[in-house]
Amino acid sequence: MISKSLLKQIKALELKKFRNESGLFIAEGSKTVLDLLELGIKAEKLIATEEWLREHSVKSDCEVIVASDDEMKKASLLRTSQGVMAIFHQQHNVIDSTVPERELCLALDNVQDPGNLGTIIRIADWFGIENIYCSIGCVDAYNPKTVQATMGAIGRVKIHYINLPEFIKSLDKKVPVYGTFLDGNDIYSGELSGNGLIIMGNEGNGISEECGRLVSERLLIPNYPAGRATSESLNVSVATAIICSEFRRRAR
Amino acid sequence: MISKSLLKQIKALELKKFRNESGLFIAEGSKTVLDLLELGIKAEKLIATEEWLREHSVKSDCEVIVASDDEMKKASLLRTSQGVMAIFHQQHNVIDSTVPERELCLALDNVQDPGNLGTIIRIADWFGIENIYCSIGCVDAYNPKTVQATMGAIGRVKIHYINLPEFIKSLDKKVPVYGTFLDGNDIYSGELSGNGLIIMGNEGNGISEECGRLVSERLLIPNYPAGRATSESLNVSVATAIICSEFRRRAR
Repeated sequence: MISKSLLKQIKALELKKFRNESGLFIAEGSKTVLDLLELGIKAEKLIATEEWLREHSVKSDCEVIVASDDEMKKASLLRTSQGVMAIFHQQHNVIDSTVPERELCLALDNVQDPGNLGTIIRIADWFGIENIYCSIGCVDAYNPKTVQATMGAIGRVKIHYINLPEFIKSLDKKVPVYGTFLDGNDIYSGELSGNGLIIMGNEGNGISEECGRLVSERLLIPNYPAGRATSESLNVSVATAIICSEFRRRAR
Repeated sequence: MISKSLLKQIKALELKKFRNESGLFIAEGSKTVLDLLELGIKAEKLIATEEWLREHSVKSDCEVIVASDDEMKKASLLRTSQGVMAIFHQQHNVIDSTVPERELCLALDNVQDPGNLGTIIRIADWFGIENIYCSIGCVDAYNPKTVQATMGAIGRVKIHYINLPEFIKSLDKKVPVYGTFLDGNDIYSGELSGNGLIIMGNEGNGISEECGRLVSERLLIPNYPAGRATSESLNVSVATAIICSEFRRRAR
């Protein structure tokens, strides 16, 4: 049974303030919950219907709460509950500024939409990008909508919240810093590195002036055919996908 | 002023049934509304605040309704109204099955999420894909969330709702029909054509069996590095972006 206080805790975890205070977050849906358990992310509580528990084997010694369909519906943050949700402990990753010297990393400059952030985390995971550096102004990666959109990838990719311009400066020009701009160089032609940082900007405003000044390699995703009137821009998660795909194509 | 009957019409246009009956749809936000007017999409009514009208010049002879901030807020389907919305006439495009012989086209097999469809339309526009063939089971392209996600691209890309398997059969094997599958060929290596059809599948189930049988070229977006444990799949709009980018890179 979902007690009143548990229901209150679940609803409170929609709020960043409460997530920060408690160090917890909510994940919903079979795939996300099972993936996170499989990856060893520590769960505090698993809440599921009897039916779901019968159909799935769970690798965790956390508290299991059996709930009715009605209770799940009330607790779920989704339009249609998938019969399972869990409260997990947030991961705390050590920030190591030598990582971009060895690996390709993403940096997000004020990405605001929870769905976009989740989709970007899933893309990073697909393309073997293990670290994402988020500016303080980015949406919280443990927002339930973000967690949902990652489809479990949030358990594999390390997300760091940092002062982004300071972090880039700390790299001390030892690695290429990529960013997309309307006057950048065609991503399909120039050289692309296997390490360094790719900065993706805010949905409406792109890369901030402060971070933009720290970009060493200006890139552009050209539209097709060249010169045709078109949408003025691509969605930030779509642009991230195209860029990551092209970087990894070159590295093969 | 937004009359009661106008408010009722706006709210009704959230529903596919009413959009179909009236042949109308709603667009919101400065960029989308101005782009659609600029493209010559016929508007029935433009509804905006005095402030918005002062700041923007409108090229349309449609009825203009001045609304207060409060009225806009009530009428808006968005969380924060941008001071303008308009009721447009849907476009009716002639279906010509010889188009894929000359151009690269997209086909969507039961894409369900309005945001995904809108994002795909925006991607198509960016990469000069002018025709999208949607199976009957796809979400309606005039869904307000879809229109919003296209950022105006819905005025440039032609969307056709058809019996997709029948349409593909009618192409009579004269054009390549691409689809992505887990056992497909690496998109970065094989030959990619400048014409034909790229089928993208449903969010959960991928390409239906019926359409799958009609695919002549099986593709795969490889993850990186090869063999690493990763997310099982990419979001359909993200996969569309990567595929379209790769097709157009080759065509340059």
